[in-house]
Amino acid sequence: MTDNSYLDSIKWTEDGLVPAIAQDAKTGRILMMAWMNRESVQLTAAEGRAVYWSRSRQQLWRKGESSGHTQVVSEIRLDCDADVIVLQVEQLGGMACHTGRESCFYRVLQEGEWVTVDPVIKDPKEIYA
Amino acid sequence: MTDNSYLDSIKWTEDGLVPAIAQDAKTGRILMMAWMNRESVQLTAAEGRAVYWSRSRQQLWRKGESSGHTQVVSEIRLDCDADVIVLQVEQLGGMACHTGRESCFYRVLQEGEWVTVDPVIKDPKEIYA
Repeated sequence: MTDNSYLDSIKWTEDGLVPAIAQDAKTGRILMMAWMNRESVQLTAAEGRAVYWSRSRQQLWRKGESSGHTQVVSEIRLDCDADVIVLQVEQLGGMACHTGRESCFYRVLQEGEWVTVDPVIKDPKEIYA
Repeated sequence: MTDNSYLDSIKWTEDGLVPAIAQDAKTGRILMMAWMNRESVQLTAAEGRAVYWSRSRQQLWRKGESSGHTQVVSEIRLDCDADVIVLQVEQLGGMACHTGRESCFYRVLQEGEWVTVDPVIKDPKEIYA
């Protein structure tokens, strides 16, 4: 496909971004949310692996490029307002979070405090060694 | 609880917002993503039902206030960067989307086009009559 009109359907922010939620295709666990620009959505669709836009580094971020924890994408969905994307992914390495946890959403609000409830699977020092 | 220091832990956008993803607590289906301000997060935690911030209307938006499709919240999670929230919800009425569908994410990218794959459960004209 060279027709990229599906990218024109997306309602980009003023910064040209769209939030993308990565969900584990097998377990349904929400792993993370990051941002994509036009190029990263296109690359994600073309390569079948999640490519985000790093707002802090202002560059394309192929998920797993340093950790090896690539996200293999099996489905891309768009919401009714065309301003949020959901990816169904296979999370290689079993962890999406830079803290070495399966999901970035590892803190639960309990009695007015954020309590960490999920274990670290792998020490980040080993992941990014 | 009158201690709202957990709200200070959240990294708000320049507009004072945080994206909130609603996930069906039983099925794991991602229903929608909307935005919350400080007051709406606090109300969601206090009332146990999703209260968003409508950016278009610039006012609090108690999900279901016009449709009856309230989201009963059983869990609130925060991600590693403290800038995204995930809600586990029971979706009353079985549909979260204003189009009368279960989820707002009803379009799948197939061969370069967004294809609607989920049925309308109830005509929006009946929902908002």
